[in-house]
Amino acid sequence: MTHKMAALSVDPDVDVSEMDRTDPLRHLRASFDLPADTIYLCGNSLGPLPGNVGARLADVVQRQWGESLIRSWNAHSWFAMPERLGARLATLIGAQAHEVTVADSTSVNLFKAACCARGLRPQRRRIVTETGNFPTDAYVLQGLAQLLGPGTEYLAVERDRILDAVDADTAVLVLTHVHYKDCAMFDMAEVTRRAQARGALVVWDLSHSVGAVCVDLNACNADFAVGCTYKYLNGGPGAPAFIFAAERHHAAMNPGLVGWWGHEQPFDFAEGYSPAAGMRRTLSGTGPILGFATLDAALDIFDGVDMAAVRAKSLRLSSLFLDLVAEKCAGFGLRAITARDNPQRGSHVALAHADGFAIMQALIRRNVIGDFRAPDVMRFGLTPLYLRYRDVWDAVEALSQVLRHGEWKSAELGRRARVT
Amino acid sequence: MTHKMAALSVDPDVDVSEMDRTDPLRHLRASFDLPADTIYLCGNSLGPLPGNVGARLADVVQRQWGESLIRSWNAHSWFAMPERLGARLATLIGAQAHEVTVADSTSVNLFKAACCARGLRPQRRRIVTETGNFPTDAYVLQGLAQLLGPGTEYLAVERDRILDAVDADTAVLVLTHVHYKDCAMFDMAEVTRRAQARGALVVWDLSHSVGAVCVDLNACNADFAVGCTYKYLNGGPGAPAFIFAAERHHAAMNPGLVGWWGHEQPFDFAEGYSPAAGMRRTLSGTGPILGFATLDAALDIFDGVDMAAVRAKSLRLSSLFLDLVAEKCAGFGLRAITARDNPQRGSHVALAHADGFAIMQALIRRNVIGDFRAPDVMRFGLTPLYLRYRDVWDAVEALSQVLRHGEWKSAELGRRARVT
Repeated sequence: MTHKMAALSVDPDVDVSEMDRTDPLRHLRASFDLPADTIYLCGNSLGPLPGNVGARLADVVQRQWGESLIRSWNAHSWFAMPERLGARLATLIGAQAHEVTVADSTSVNLFKAACCARGLRPQRRRIVTETGNFPTDAYVLQGLAQLLGPGTEYLAVERDRILDAVDADTAVLVLTHVHYKDCAMFDMAEVTRRAQARGALVVWDLSHSVGAVCVDLNACNADFAVGCTYKYLNGGPGAPAFIFAAERHHAAMNPGLVGWWGHEQPFDFAEGYSPAAGMRRTLSGTGPILGFATLDAALDIFDGVDMAAVRAKSLRLSSLFLDLVAEKCAGFGLRAITARDNPQRGSHVALAHADGFAIMQALIRRNVIGDFRAPDVMRFGLTPLYLRYRDVWDAVEALSQVLRHGEWKSAELGRRARVT
Repeated sequence: MTHKMAALSVDPDVDVSEMDRTDPLRHLRASFDLPADTIYLCGNSLGPLPGNVGARLADVVQRQWGESLIRSWNAHSWFAMPERLGARLATLIGAQAHEVTVADSTSVNLFKAACCARGLRPQRRRIVTETGNFPTDAYVLQGLAQLLGPGTEYLAVERDRILDAVDADTAVLVLTHVHYKDCAMFDMAEVTRRAQARGALVVWDLSHSVGAVCVDLNACNADFAVGCTYKYLNGGPGAPAFIFAAERHHAAMNPGLVGWWGHEQPFDFAEGYSPAAGMRRTLSGTGPILGFATLDAALDIFDGVDMAAVRAKSLRLSSLFLDLVAEKCAGFGLRAITARDNPQRGSHVALAHADGFAIMQALIRRNVIGDFRAPDVMRFGLTPLYLRYRDVWDAVEALSQVLRHGEWKSAELGRRARVT
């Protein structure tokens, strides 16, 4: 299939088939079980099923749990999975292997990371974040500030004033690296440097970054980070999340929410809590082995993959998407929130439209699956491991048909999708 | 097979084959995939694999995740699973359907429950628990007390003085209903009544109770409870845990660790946290769908099962075990920690021996699988859903052989098992 365009912003000679043919990541699509006839643009919310997960889970369930039973804690190294998976993830985010563990949800890990950071700046009162940050981040921090009482204060500030708000009373700055809605990306190195220059610590939420953009935590001198593994990492619905702490903080940090998996000698069953020396202290209760195993399988796909190549394809996919929208969908009131010419963006595209919810429903009826965020934002995840350039072409073609034929006006289009 | 005994404490006419033949729960054994030639006495630590889990997980993975993808949040009601599973669990613990949710680990839920209770008694400083409680409970509470600062104090007290320690400065009493090591069981109604009479709230950890003994939280006027689902409920390694709060506390309770799944309108993506009206506020981040699905399958086995019958068989199994040990293993220095004639016990048997670790290793080599807890305790889980009376007979016979032949002295028996 060749799509030639007489475009405004699109190179008239763009040939998506040729782009797919020469895509260095094209072989990775076969690693996924993708439903036929569907263009899946929600991988920024829930990644699709890796083809190796079914067999891996069956093995863990039947052979490890079913046959080895309790002996699997040793025989299959279940107890070491938080660190082993953390080491695998570390390679994707510029961390050392012993600086990352996998456990709990992103919300729980953010609570722990914020506790660690806040505890390292006891003389300062404030936890600062961005207005419009992903809600769970705001809620976790509000809850923590309330829990800690009058000595701790929560403050949300608009993005363009965020660094001005970091002052001598700021203990922690908590930011989501790539915004879940508009896809804008912070300059991690610069923000970290400036916040630290004012004596604050920085916690980065990498939920919309990991596996999608290049992240180099230690090159940025990051303090703490957390993130989700069921989006671009394809770890499955509600997969366990991760937490990073720079080695320099390990000895003094206290995640507040602790438990026996974080004890220095958990099988001594001692009365008093004594934290493990390194990242192990970020763990609390027994970890979800089936979730770990699924994530482990999903991470196999990233073995040997160059994140720079992923990033390059991501930008090409989103640029193509925006160019095609500019060409094919002009005049229908769409507004691109994600800036075409700003490489400081993540791996989805956000388009605003007053009827965005209904338009998205009409697209989904055409098996082009994106999602919607109130009040008016349509999101299209552009995930380099399995999407082709022709998928982008076809998706925008479908969008233009929906708009030109007014398909979204034609039917009752259901209630708002409940997706993360 | 008929085993006739000329016993001291055992009825000389005991016939385990007849006991199995007339066991009203005997049909349930077929619900599990148990390895051949193994007597599994670790169901109090990790329950075995229910036979329906493989197909259920495959369906959730392939059809729900793989095909429906993001649409499964609605199409397969993923978002409602914490409450739906909570309602199923409620029937096993004497709770109302809307008083239980399933989420996170036991440690995380204990943190939340203790926060709720502590916040409801703001004028009192102390969180009291039992010396020798399961370590994660102690660690979670120590961590919470440290986090909350000088206005909160952690106190561990010996079991026989625990109620004396509950005074006008006690905010919360946190107890594990059935002790993980010696299997002693608190009188929940009496302890709750007496602690509440002194103005404290009580949090019960039901990890070693749920699915094993009769629990009637509301009949005991319990305030809060948490528990594990991978022991007697067979929910799989690291399965999500549960949390209970009595309805009377719902409006005012604050779990401290909050997040978007506990918001009253999570998909409004509001800036400010506003808790859901009921138990939903105990949730924080996105829940583990594969773990939920596995637990859901495991709970099918309990449908229509009378917990009183489970409890009756549990006591018969452990009485038989202790009687047989008294008869067959006398003179080898074994000491029964679990009292034969005290029905205030859970569903495992604890035997102490100076060489307990090595003896257990020798038993495991005979495919009789129990576990060991330092310094000298062997634990034998007696789980009524799948164990037969003949299994108890054979297990004690194996133990007596190990003792009589000194098998535990004969070989290097490996390092301490790492099991929960």
